[in-house]
Amino acid sequence: MNICIVGTGLLGGSFALGLKASEKGHFYTGVDANSQHTREALRLGIIDKVGDFEQAIPDADLVVLATPVDALLHLLPQCLDLISDDAVVIDLGSTKSKIIKTVESHPKRGRYVACHPIAGTEHSGPESAFESLLKDQMMIICDQEFSDPDALELVKHTFNKIGMKIHFMDGATHDKHIAYVSHLSHISSFALGLTVLDKEQIEESIFNMAGSGFSSTVRLAKSSPEMWAPILLQNEPQILEALDQYIRELEQFRALIAGKDAVALRELMARANGIKRVLKEM
Amino acid sequence: MNICIVGTGLLGGSFALGLKASEKGHFYTGVDANSQHTREALRLGIIDKVGDFEQAIPDADLVVLATPVDALLHLLPQCLDLISDDAVVIDLGSTKSKIIKTVESHPKRGRYVACHPIAGTEHSGPESAFESLLKDQMMIICDQEFSDPDALELVKHTFNKIGMKIHFMDGATHDKHIAYVSHLSHISSFALGLTVLDKEQIEESIFNMAGSGFSSTVRLAKSSPEMWAPILLQNEPQILEALDQYIRELEQFRALIAGKDAVALRELMARANGIKRVLKEM
Repeated sequence: MNICIVGTGLLGGSFALGLKASEKGHFYTGVDANSQHTREALRLGIIDKVGDFEQAIPDADLVVLATPVDALLHLLPQCLDLISDDAVVIDLGSTKSKIIKTVESHPKRGRYVACHPIAGTEHSGPESAFESLLKDQMMIICDQEFSDPDALELVKHTFNKIGMKIHFMDGATHDKHIAYVSHLSHISSFALGLTVLDKEQIEESIFNMAGSGFSSTVRLAKSSPEMWAPILLQNEPQILEALDQYIRELEQFRALIAGKDAVALRELMARANGIKRVLKEM
Repeated sequence: MNICIVGTGLLGGSFALGLKASEKGHFYTGVDANSQHTREALRLGIIDKVGDFEQAIPDADLVVLATPVDALLHLLPQCLDLISDDAVVIDLGSTKSKIIKTVESHPKRGRYVACHPIAGTEHSGPESAFESLLKDQMMIICDQEFSDPDALELVKHTFNKIGMKIHFMDGATHDKHIAYVSHLSHISSFALGLTVLDKEQIEESIFNMAGSGFSSTVRLAKSSPEMWAPILLQNEPQILEALDQYIRELEQFRALIAGKDAVALRELMARANGIKRVLKEM
């Protein structure tokens, strides 16, 4: 197949490397608004050729849109306009409803399969891509009933080749759940990073005392603003609901600490320990 | 030396295992309010004998108090009452000022060295202890000018043997900084765990979609309530300051998301990316 990767960063790059390692014979063209990224992706063997959007899309059998989610809102309809009738388009965005909505009445809607891989790191750009990022991870396919059966088959085959587990879900449920188990984690980390960095301005060398617990909770604060600001804005209502609940939980901790209520604090923490069950399952 | 470990859990147990591996010839007596813990510690080779507090302390050359910090408030003065004149007592508590204050006018104050190892995991109990937990990690010694020089020397020698780096600090500064780089991380994780567990009651199978980012930010929610509730209460003023600032940062995110302010949201995240410098240094 001719595969066109639009956005040759962490996810787009890792998709290409993962598929290259497991299925030979495809040709990869890379498209990126940042020409340094395509040059780097070419050098790293992620893509075989650098292309531009208008010329590369009509030649592709499979288009992988792996850009920030704000760009997807205009790239996806443009892409469906340009593809050949048999080609298939997927996106890898962390939000789904608004992206799906942009093409709901597009004559080629059936050629599009809405995807979201539950995989990533706090790094970005082609140099952060690696072959095994998607292997053994979950790929969520949303609103599959609006995709043509052959398009869906091709996408499932491709993800299986990379070693991914496929899970089906409607776009609205996806956005609601992902706000809690991914987007909120990012906000909590970004805010934690800011809190401690601000404090460092007054109290020097505060980070001397930071251990693995801090590293773990603040790791996602290294994530790309270009990727994450659009995600938070695009999933706004779901995220505000999750964030408001999170702030309420924090205020409950605040009240129990200020009120020196050891018993209730212990009970609250014991309830949070329920996460052991969940992390064991993962 | 006769070494008495009071609290044979993660930290006390790992201290004993680390020292056993690096310096032979010591005899370890374990004391724990939970008799299952001492039995288990004996079985695992963490201690050589089970003892009780009143009998074991007078025979010890070095006492390691590794209990929750609320218990330390009465165990430390009792311990200084009971030790022989040449013995040394350390504690491994995550708060320092209030613990140090309990013995500030004790006639044997000089035999006490206030310590806090920057090491731990989200697990607890003797079975979670391991030999290398403290190796290459930082041991903070607080208010060392109130400890006798020979007591300080013994403690430094012992920590060096285990492979720890020693850092000196006054107790008040310790409590202020640790609120930001450790205690706040725990609250943020506990609250995140609760938020998502509560949501799961309504939306089933929400955790199917949780990836490594969620695991990383919520890991500390598995921490022991018996250990952590007393820490948060004992470091209350510092923690409330840190927590209030954290909630303000979250509210800033909330306002920018609700106001769809992409530019300011990106700027805020870019500032949080400053944490890259810090995590690189760690």
